[in-house]
Amino acid sequence: MSKPLDTGAVRALRTAADLGVELCLANPGTTELAFVEALDAVPEIRSVLGLFEGVCTGAADGYGRMAGKPALSLLHLGPGFANGIANLHNARRARSPIVNLIGDQASWHLQHDAPLTSDIGSLASPVSHWMRTSGSPRHLDRDLRDAIDAANGPPAGVSTLIVPADHQFRSANEGNAVGLSVPFDAPASRALDVDRVAERVRAGENIALLLGGNALHHDGVRAAGRIAQRFGAKCIAETFPARWERGTGLPVVDRLPYFPEQAQEALAKFDLVITAGARTPVAFFGYEGIESVLVEDERIACLAEPFEDAAAALIVLADALGARTGDTPDAPPPAAPDLSAALDPMTIGTVVAALLPENAIVMEEGATSSLPFYLLSNGAAPHTVMTLTGGAIGQGMPCATGAALACPDRKVVNLQADGSGMYTLQSLWTQAREGLDVTTLVCSNRAYRILQVEFGRTGNIEPGPKARRLTNLDEPELDWVALARGMGVPGVRIETTEAFFRELPRAIAEPGPQLLELMI
Amino acid sequence: MSKPLDTGAVRALRTAADLGVELCLANPGTTELAFVEALDAVPEIRSVLGLFEGVCTGAADGYGRMAGKPALSLLHLGPGFANGIANLHNARRARSPIVNLIGDQASWHLQHDAPLTSDIGSLASPVSHWMRTSGSPRHLDRDLRDAIDAANGPPAGVSTLIVPADHQFRSANEGNAVGLSVPFDAPASRALDVDRVAERVRAGENIALLLGGNALHHDGVRAAGRIAQRFGAKCIAETFPARWERGTGLPVVDRLPYFPEQAQEALAKFDLVITAGARTPVAFFGYEGIESVLVEDERIACLAEPFEDAAAALIVLADALGARTGDTPDAPPPAAPDLSAALDPMTIGTVVAALLPENAIVMEEGATSSLPFYLLSNGAAPHTVMTLTGGAIGQGMPCATGAALACPDRKVVNLQADGSGMYTLQSLWTQAREGLDVTTLVCSNRAYRILQVEFGRTGNIEPGPKARRLTNLDEPELDWVALARGMGVPGVRIETTEAFFRELPRAIAEPGPQLLELMI
Repeated sequence: MSKPLDTGAVRALRTAADLGVELCLANPGTTELAFVEALDAVPEIRSVLGLFEGVCTGAADGYGRMAGKPALSLLHLGPGFANGIANLHNARRARSPIVNLIGDQASWHLQHDAPLTSDIGSLASPVSHWMRTSGSPRHLDRDLRDAIDAANGPPAGVSTLIVPADHQFRSANEGNAVGLSVPFDAPASRALDVDRVAERVRAGENIALLLGGNALHHDGVRAAGRIAQRFGAKCIAETFPARWERGTGLPVVDRLPYFPEQAQEALAKFDLVITAGARTPVAFFGYEGIESVLVEDERIACLAEPFEDAAAALIVLADALGARTGDTPDAPPPAAPDLSAALDPMTIGTVVAALLPENAIVMEEGATSSLPFYLLSNGAAPHTVMTLTGGAIGQGMPCATGAALACPDRKVVNLQADGSGMYTLQSLWTQAREGLDVTTLVCSNRAYRILQVEFGRTGNIEPGPKARRLTNLDEPELDWVALARGMGVPGVRIETTEAFFRELPRAIAEPGPQLLELMI
Repeated sequence: MSKPLDTGAVRALRTAADLGVELCLANPGTTELAFVEALDAVPEIRSVLGLFEGVCTGAADGYGRMAGKPALSLLHLGPGFANGIANLHNARRARSPIVNLIGDQASWHLQHDAPLTSDIGSLASPVSHWMRTSGSPRHLDRDLRDAIDAANGPPAGVSTLIVPADHQFRSANEGNAVGLSVPFDAPASRALDVDRVAERVRAGENIALLLGGNALHHDGVRAAGRIAQRFGAKCIAETFPARWERGTGLPVVDRLPYFPEQAQEALAKFDLVITAGARTPVAFFGYEGIESVLVEDERIACLAEPFEDAAAALIVLADALGARTGDTPDAPPPAAPDLSAALDPMTIGTVVAALLPENAIVMEEGATSSLPFYLLSNGAAPHTVMTLTGGAIGQGMPCATGAALACPDRKVVNLQADGSGMYTLQSLWTQAREGLDVTTLVCSNRAYRILQVEFGRTGNIEPGPKARRLTNLDEPELDWVALARGMGVPGVRIETTEAFFRELPRAIAEPGPQLLELMI
């Protein structure tokens, strides 16, 4: 079978390149081979292989957060896509721009329900902000253009384009059918009522600014800082920001606690909570006797919804309030670590805060092990933090991979829990192959510690033997240094704070990926 | 919060135990903690932890295939469930009995769209044969009973029960709402028209018996063998059987080739193809110029649909035809391996066939590396083969794990491709923890070889550099011995046929899991 030079796939990828797409994260199969082949005809798009689809979608999330534009994730039919759903769930919560390209059975073959056939639309709709099935080779380029436009937004989000194999490999001059989009509800546009919010600020109320979305990017944080300084307001970040700029030179922003009663307490002292890019806070899980919504309606004022340009809204508000640009006092520099103290979440946070290189990206999926880091790093070198936006664990390593692809000039430090890390450890191989500057810090407590904490919260302080065994990761212990070596990443096991303080700068200084297994 | 002794979860798991459920494969989170706790109150149900949900669902598939009854797979909300979808897709194709228990947000909390909330029904319906959301703690036991009944069938299948957290931890005497089932189409019942099929067999046509489902279990294969012997018919197994009994003492059954033109050719010589538990064969993927349906309607006669009792139908047919029980000639014993030949798929197949212990279970996800095994093992010691029913790779290691849990007295040999193995390598940890008798043979060709073959089929015999890099797994090479050691499984790298011939019996003789990395 000789193929036309101008296939649907080639023309579509050319269009993607013209629209600025530079990266394709791929775990392809037979029904995507024409796209794979087309990549060689489109030099502007770099292709990166992941050994599991969750690596590709999580990396697309990390890339989207940092690059501010979509990568393609090229996935194999329904089951391949399904392996990427958990990290697309996180990406949906992060409002990251991503374009999923899913190859499906050839259009004439779909009806025969061959083994890999499944209802891709049903699988994709819960994590997609836009979805379409290609209608013909001729219009595949238009379909992909629409997918990219939808991903870029505003509002940005996850686009899913399902492409039958024949639409990829046939001539782009064939067929005439236009793809069918599944309509999703677009968020309602809203006029910004800055005056009303400004009036309440001026009324001298005790105010918190709850920041999310791009309110946590540089411009947003700075504008929030002006308001905070002028009116004595407190800046608080939503619990799981997609991208949060922090460190010296930026105003101090606290993090809203995870557990609902602590979050309620943190917000109780304010007469008014102004949300900018953050949702009205709700409990992560429901607990009996605790309200799901953590602030009453009458104490909330929305300046900007998560899908709006919250940074711009904060600037308008700060200007309206006459809150001038001025130097915000820096947080004190991180404390010097006590090298004789035991290696634990507190000393890990202290060492990382003290040694973080300028302009680092911290991908934090440390669960219970990384909580102290936030408290200790306000005065650290300027850095970006990315978090587990949708709670679907297994996002840290892929997202770190994507951030490193987006920002080759910055160091990525992945503060990683061991239980979560095991979900998508295949990411290390992609980091090794691409020589990515990711330093992975596996906080090895050999437990799903958060579940043990949750047991305690229900009053079950002595779980039975089965419950203990289902939340412990010992028997056998994981050896992360061996796992990393198995995928081409050098690793070192660390038992003491002193060794961590010595090894972290070395690992960060080395080019390419490194892993430190922190035995806590 | 003190909890009632008789929670919804405890009463439901008691009911499950009463119905014969013995195993719960769990990767739980906060919204399943009451089930985790309840497991300690129900000693009949063993709990086994997987470090990734795809391990749990794939193990539930392997268990279901071998035990003939469901295990529970306990999964965390939509994103946790999503990580198990690919292997549930395989299980759906295998028609394995499985009960998914998914904890969801507390009923009152769901509306607030907390981070982990998603549309579980949309994710679950493509892989579920029965689905319900629990209505109240009081009826949770009934809901689980219905789920188990639906999984057991007939026809057997995948049940999915979604249980809000509060229905689990509240008193089983609370509430009155009954769960809502999503109705799925039950396959139409069909009267068995044995006479019509028997008439065509007697007419002396040149016949193939295409076997699937339980036609490949002992009774089915023996009945098919009687017909084959009496009428000179050929027995052929569907390409991807869920469970296939083979080896000495059983009639020889060929395997239908994977590529459609080869399958067409294999079936072309028959006047009539009688399907028993197998579907009318269709191409795995659509290829231009090749029919999707591989046998014309007029050459197909259906004795039993895949959801019917095909073994019973074959017995009735054999009896109606007067095909008596008699000794079937055994296939010749496996050839002695040439120990000086290079290690490759052919020598791997030869060595495995020669050394397979009696009554072994072979979980075959070897892709291109295991094709010769089928041809070489007809005369091997009696064994069971399980295959990749739904084509969703990453099923081999989990399914082997589940088979070992179902059959602790049998050796499991996992003939495993390296690319597929990387999807769910976390299975090795569960094998180590539970001391399971699984010998994993990783056929390391450091490529997605099947994709390279598929490239060749499209005429692209010299893929470009990007296409080559997306189908090669070198740069860096995976070190499977290190990966296995990282999860507590001893491993050895094997470079020669002679070493494989020496090491395989040793690995099989050792109790517990072992891994051999076969460098081909």
